[in-house]
Amino acid sequence: MLETRGYRKWSLAIHGGAGVIARKALTIDQEAAYRAALGKVIELGGAVLAAGGQALDAVEAAVSAMEDDPLFNAGRGAVFTAEGRNELDASIMDGKTLMAGAVAGLTRIRHPVSLARAVMERSGHVMLIGEGAERFARTQGIEEVEPSFFFTERRWRSLEKYLTKKGWPIPQKPVGPKTNERPYLVHDEGKLGTVGAVALDAQGHLAAATSTGGTTGKRFGRVGDSPLIGAGCYAADGACAVSCTGDGEYFIRLSVARTIAARMEMRVTSLKNAVDAVVQHALTALGGEGGVIAVAPDGQIAWSYNTEGMYRARASSDGPTVIGLYASDS
Amino acid sequence: MLETRGYRKWSLAIHGGAGVIARKALTIDQEAAYRAALGKVIELGGAVLAAGGQALDAVEAAVSAMEDDPLFNAGRGAVFTAEGRNELDASIMDGKTLMAGAVAGLTRIRHPVSLARAVMERSGHVMLIGEGAERFARTQGIEEVEPSFFFTERRWRSLEKYLTKKGWPIPQKPVGPKTNERPYLVHDEGKLGTVGAVALDAQGHLAAATSTGGTTGKRFGRVGDSPLIGAGCYAADGACAVSCTGDGEYFIRLSVARTIAARMEMRVTSLKNAVDAVVQHALTALGGEGGVIAVAPDGQIAWSYNTEGMYRARASSDGPTVIGLYASDS
Repeated sequence: MLETRGYRKWSLAIHGGAGVIARKALTIDQEAAYRAALGKVIELGGAVLAAGGQALDAVEAAVSAMEDDPLFNAGRGAVFTAEGRNELDASIMDGKTLMAGAVAGLTRIRHPVSLARAVMERSGHVMLIGEGAERFARTQGIEEVEPSFFFTERRWRSLEKYLTKKGWPIPQKPVGPKTNERPYLVHDEGKLGTVGAVALDAQGHLAAATSTGGTTGKRFGRVGDSPLIGAGCYAADGACAVSCTGDGEYFIRLSVARTIAARMEMRVTSLKNAVDAVVQHALTALGGEGGVIAVAPDGQIAWSYNTEGMYRARASSDGPTVIGLYASDS
Repeated sequence: MLETRGYRKWSLAIHGGAGVIARKALTIDQEAAYRAALGKVIELGGAVLAAGGQALDAVEAAVSAMEDDPLFNAGRGAVFTAEGRNELDASIMDGKTLMAGAVAGLTRIRHPVSLARAVMERSGHVMLIGEGAERFARTQGIEEVEPSFFFTERRWRSLEKYLTKKGWPIPQKPVGPKTNERPYLVHDEGKLGTVGAVALDAQGHLAAATSTGGTTGKRFGRVGDSPLIGAGCYAADGACAVSCTGDGEYFIRLSVARTIAARMEMRVTSLKNAVDAVVQHALTALGGEGGVIAVAPDGQIAWSYNTEGMYRARASSDGPTVIGLYASDS
């Protein structure tokens, strides 16, 4: 198609969470580590699209890479629950077919986003949860790891701090694998960590994916917006693709991703106005914090957040790659 | 408020599932049983509203009553999973505050909708899943029952039929409690059973609730649209309240409830046009089956389904009570 129809544009945006991300909150080493990580991921996903690959493959590759990086609250690097476990959630959506996949409450899947994709493509369902989702993973040859794979020293310390403040008991510390983790590089973004990606491919199709470890000290099988299609993730070729990060409960109550897409569908607004209307107005009015990234069918990228900062990056066939952390980063 | 501001109108609509509901598919006894059950529930919920009660209380009372009735696929009367269990999902939303609560994968909670309400009001979260949700229930004094409470002979026979057709193993039959269940009265609505309610109260507030046992023979912790805010349930005072029933996967992919509400928010259409646009057009185009009930801030009620029938009823302060099963029922 690239050959016969000539040059077509592509766009990619990623986020690695929103929150207390300000110059004074990060060390110089932390800032450098996050910029380097975001740069690596946007390059990886951009290469998929530049080669004529699918939006779906690009968002899975980008989110999968962030799930492997302990800097981000997803996959390895996930925060701990009050019981000292890592419970992972993810979702993915194909704007071309409106097919979607989602998983929640995983404890043994290295790449939750890839399981979400397998659910979408091979389960006949959209959402699988908990141990049932992991049984499905086993039938699909999805990579499984020991729960200790997700242990990181820095996130454990955040949990201890949180539980001490709450006056809740501190569970026994699990033994994690020996890694070359550099815990001092991980910035604590508060409770708003999540990763996500949105893409337009050269064939004109959109896709979105989101993955998270949830919130430090979460209890009772709490699930946020990340694995909920319409809340933390949505993609429709006729509208836009959206991935969210923030106070999950507020994003669910506003169906943030779907609301932005609905505004685009009705063609009453530009993408930038649509994301700002929901994040700067509706979300802020309700008292929620966080941000979104979005891409329109014409390749236009927009992001919006009402926190101090958001880890983010964008790349496209016809513009420079931009990496941002703080509000001042443009 | 009723006293000082005089007469204000209220409205209530309920559904008990959509599917293969046609005159030729039901016996005369089944038809009478469903009409009587729907009549009892609409009267119960209507009484709450007529007395000046909250929309939230009315939808909880209506859904709770349907959860106790083995005629409907929710609570007692829930279908079985492939493993021979009953896994229950529910959600509730308050249009006044946009607060919401949802639960999925329950096996021991008599009234999932009441646990969803407790999650909304007392957990600080929106969604809790599985065993964690049941641990939260215990801290809240929510009524717990033995899993065998949900056993009904008729649903077990549906499971056996389904598994035999699939060539999957039939699990050992659990021993259920002795009840005065009359299994021959239960109509098999196929895979689209769910219950729900939407209401406008005399104070002008909206609410919606949805509850289900999911689909016969479901596997791997499958979750449908019922417990997903924005998919199977949504309420916003400025828009409308919606509850859905049908092929859950399609309802999730279209965020059916939120999409209808978004159309109402933008005031581009009437409630009837909004529900028809999503059900008759978008849902049908995607190949999904099911229906919705909705109520607007002015008390207008609309329903729409693309199946042969939908168990439904409506009542209001200024109109007759209407009970319907088939398309010909108006």
